[in-house]
Amino acid sequence: MSINPHLDVVTAFVSELAQLGVKHVCISPGSRSTPLTISFARHGECKTWTLLDERSAAFFALGLARSSGEPVVLVCTSGTAAANYLPAVVEARYSRVPLIVLTADRPTELRNVGTNQTIEQVGLYGAHVKWSIEMPTPDGAKELLAHARSTAARSVAIALSTPKGPVHINWPFREPLLPPYEVQDEVNTQLPKGLHIESGQRQLTASRLEYLAKMLTSIENGLFVVGPQFQQELAAPLLEVATRLQFPVLADPLSQMRAVSEEVDLTCVVDRYDTLLRHSDLMQGEIWDKLKPDVVIRLGQAPTSKVLGAYLSKLDDVRQIVVDESDEWRDPLFRASELWLTDPVILFSELKELLPQRETSLFAQHWLSLNDSIEKRQVFEVEHIEEQYVGEDLPHLFEGRIFTELARVLPLDARLFVGNSMPVRDVDSFFPKMHKSLFMLANRGASGIDGIVSSALGACAGTSRKTVLVIGDVSFYHDLNGLLIAKQYQLDLTIILVHNDGGGIFSFLPQATQEDVFPYFETPHGLEFQSVIEMYGGSYHQVHTWSDFEVKMNAAMENHGLQVLELRTVRALNVEMHRKIFSACRDVLL
Amino acid sequence: MSINPHLDVVTAFVSELAQLGVKHVCISPGSRSTPLTISFARHGECKTWTLLDERSAAFFALGLARSSGEPVVLVCTSGTAAANYLPAVVEARYSRVPLIVLTADRPTELRNVGTNQTIEQVGLYGAHVKWSIEMPTPDGAKELLAHARSTAARSVAIALSTPKGPVHINWPFREPLLPPYEVQDEVNTQLPKGLHIESGQRQLTASRLEYLAKMLTSIENGLFVVGPQFQQELAAPLLEVATRLQFPVLADPLSQMRAVSEEVDLTCVVDRYDTLLRHSDLMQGEIWDKLKPDVVIRLGQAPTSKVLGAYLSKLDDVRQIVVDESDEWRDPLFRASELWLTDPVILFSELKELLPQRETSLFAQHWLSLNDSIEKRQVFEVEHIEEQYVGEDLPHLFEGRIFTELARVLPLDARLFVGNSMPVRDVDSFFPKMHKSLFMLANRGASGIDGIVSSALGACAGTSRKTVLVIGDVSFYHDLNGLLIAKQYQLDLTIILVHNDGGGIFSFLPQATQEDVFPYFETPHGLEFQSVIEMYGGSYHQVHTWSDFEVKMNAAMENHGLQVLELRTVRALNVEMHRKIFSACRDVLL
Repeated sequence: MSINPHLDVVTAFVSELAQLGVKHVCISPGSRSTPLTISFARHGECKTWTLLDERSAAFFALGLARSSGEPVVLVCTSGTAAANYLPAVVEARYSRVPLIVLTADRPTELRNVGTNQTIEQVGLYGAHVKWSIEMPTPDGAKELLAHARSTAARSVAIALSTPKGPVHINWPFREPLLPPYEVQDEVNTQLPKGLHIESGQRQLTASRLEYLAKMLTSIENGLFVVGPQFQQELAAPLLEVATRLQFPVLADPLSQMRAVSEEVDLTCVVDRYDTLLRHSDLMQGEIWDKLKPDVVIRLGQAPTSKVLGAYLSKLDDVRQIVVDESDEWRDPLFRASELWLTDPVILFSELKELLPQRETSLFAQHWLSLNDSIEKRQVFEVEHIEEQYVGEDLPHLFEGRIFTELARVLPLDARLFVGNSMPVRDVDSFFPKMHKSLFMLANRGASGIDGIVSSALGACAGTSRKTVLVIGDVSFYHDLNGLLIAKQYQLDLTIILVHNDGGGIFSFLPQATQEDVFPYFETPHGLEFQSVIEMYGGSYHQVHTWSDFEVKMNAAMENHGLQVLELRTVRALNVEMHRKIFSACRDVLL
Repeated sequence: MSINPHLDVVTAFVSELAQLGVKHVCISPGSRSTPLTISFARHGECKTWTLLDERSAAFFALGLARSSGEPVVLVCTSGTAAANYLPAVVEARYSRVPLIVLTADRPTELRNVGTNQTIEQVGLYGAHVKWSIEMPTPDGAKELLAHARSTAARSVAIALSTPKGPVHINWPFREPLLPPYEVQDEVNTQLPKGLHIESGQRQLTASRLEYLAKMLTSIENGLFVVGPQFQQELAAPLLEVATRLQFPVLADPLSQMRAVSEEVDLTCVVDRYDTLLRHSDLMQGEIWDKLKPDVVIRLGQAPTSKVLGAYLSKLDDVRQIVVDESDEWRDPLFRASELWLTDPVILFSELKELLPQRETSLFAQHWLSLNDSIEKRQVFEVEHIEEQYVGEDLPHLFEGRIFTELARVLPLDARLFVGNSMPVRDVDSFFPKMHKSLFMLANRGASGIDGIVSSALGACAGTSRKTVLVIGDVSFYHDLNGLLIAKQYQLDLTIILVHNDGGGIFSFLPQATQEDVFPYFETPHGLEFQSVIEMYGGSYHQVHTWSDFEVKMNAAMENHGLQVLELRTVRALNVEMHRKIFSACRDVLL
């Protein structure tokens, strides 16, 4: 043992994390966390990221973990530092992202007695972590080394087991935090290390699979609805099953089933349901009958589209199957008649081997041809809507068009991160299905507008792939602090900033009809972001036309560092343009 | 009842808050909170503040509540918005600040079933709120109006009862959130309203007071130690008791006993203990004996000064009395031999009537003459330390001198908010006792560097008094978002920004000796803040000399809006200057 009891224990913990494949640790500076910080800096094999604002740090870790699927470690000092992690921990819990949160603390005897910078950290994240543990205060007992290694392995195992999620380890350290020390070799040699973990997945037996395959084959008119989910490998087997069964797939943009590689058959994918289902008053009689499924199979989180949710609610006499790897009960509409609790990737990979190819399906044809008609009309409207506003002072760019343009200019394998509120709704309405593999990311666990910039930077940090974030001005403002990470680590993120000076989404909601109180919702702030973007070392470009957008996007994809392309739009006109486009598409249904 | 069941209930709640004297509500925009927002906007008598970033909003409310002593209301939508409140709620809990946190939520049936933007909000703040309640979902039942009124009154009563603190009310609202409605008059007329609350304070009986007065009179060498506390009215009675007993008072700058009005006798106040007690190696033999008290009487939070804490720990054979209004056990040193659990303002107001005036005390003379000698020497050193650095490239301003300068230039009744980390330590070491009433504020509950800008803006918002914040660059960066409030509401805050490009405090700690890992602690960020200050409508001034400082401070005290005076300093030299000054003062003890 070394002179310092902390460091041996912490080093045992840190080296075990590294041996189990943890690659990244995000550290916020602080004194109480000194043993952790030093251990990661000196003895770990993880890449260290130093981040000053713990709220942004946690969202950065979330972005990194979401895009890699691997657990990312957070380290902070005691007190409100740990409290600042909560928003990202909540998001991680509901969107199933593995985080290992390490909070330094004062030892037990200094709690609840008025000690400075000491809060109730045990249980701080409540139900929002999958597991939490308070470590014993290192006191030199050798058994604590073995316990630390075991706990490190356990934290990785739990963060990664189904459903993935955050875990919290509270580390009490008694002073002195930093005497001279030397970690003894025995710490690294005399203990078992790199605990090997084989972790099974939830699966159905062969006989149940055969039963389900037969059952699916017997269904005439089936419909898949896939909400946000971040396993890119689900697209191929699920779409193959859909193709064999001739079931249309209503694919949320975050389902990873709109922009896929050449090998994946996209024929069954319906990407315009959000426009189609808006016209629910027309959804009766013949159209309704032709589109009505016998069975709905739902996967992923609740779909982004509100009208799709309303449509599913209306199907209350239809058999609805929810497929999920966990028993967290993803049935916000209470319409499920069957739950298949099993790993979806394995399920569809195995099912596709058991299913014959169905010849044709009138039901699928109805969905797909209507989708096709709406797409054509919508594309036309999007391209021409701005012409109605020519001659006015500003170049009135239509916000939704960002996504039809991005679909063209994004390079292969790019990552597209979309902010909550309007961007995620627009990507849903306007991003076309296409053969170009893209990874589509968003924070849809709790759907906050906080931490988006940092989350996108985290997604960007773990990869050499081009990463683009589309975000509104309120959400951008909320996480301006995250931009420091881009400056410090020269991260290559391109941000499309949709600036309409306020919470644009509220212009679409009934609150807009209450004139006297509407300022409490739309909240114009009058901020001009160029200077702050430049403070963080970014380059700022205003975009005035779509050809301008293409030129600047192409340049951004070539350049390095933080690039911000700002589109100025007008809230009220944006609502009007959306309504006109959706309304024009209604003609297709008449 | 109106058509909308939410609004009647919420209006009953809101009007009761107003009738019980709640004056401010801080609202962050959101959809689920619509009934609350509209009710405060239309039917409340509270001043509304709209704040986009919930973390900053909560700290703003905290600052407003801390400086006024009155409860301030927070309103946010569901999801991570509520999680962003946690850091300020934690600070409020430990520094006893009354907050009423209202979080909108989805109704019970939509929780834990995968609904969008729905997290576990019941119990979200854990042990960090004094009380929490989940409201029933408004359903039109008339009894809910009476319940809402009663709950509003209860939340005010609990937030204000000893010890003051935050309460949490979770409000589930079922859609539609906003049908047309009209609040019926009966809501405001047919219910009891403005529940009158008489709230007693913890007090000792007359006979116990007499006993304590006699006991105190019998003590020869008593010493008061007053840590941070925010009741300005404690200074007069406590210092009168100290004067009668001839007990020196070691007064933390945040004790509100350093800068007081003319009528208060400051003779007993010791303001240089932090410099004096640093030389603990000299604190033996004669000096130690002369300064050693028979009894220590402690009040307030743990003192800012680390060396004062160490000194109190060393006094483990001395009777130590802790006076506190609550049984939250403010004894981080475990040296208390007596607890007086009673309201300190009442206690000392009554005790002073019972105590005779002691003639002289050698013990007090020792403390006060040593304090006096150190003060003289320190003032001299502070004024001359920079001369040693003349001729170097930069004008090396000594950070500690900010407080000797501020002591002169701050106007009567100003509020001085100090950031954590170095500013609070420097105000402790260098701010002289004086006859000029000032309100000294800081976030010392959890002592975070987060939310300081917003807290100071909150302190400024509730008053026409001049408010000055002294803050380091890391803490300033952490809460840049708070500056939006200054822009939106034209708040008159002057910020002294001490910019040494990193976490200056770590240069004082042993971590600075570990060269290879020190970058993880000092974290230089290279940010130049002028542009972002200007983005938020502030005016920015660099200060190069102390005469320059005085001119610009005087101008700032005349001007309106956000004023930032930036002092650039060098971390390593700042440490050196501190050490030289403390070391020079050592001579006084030899």
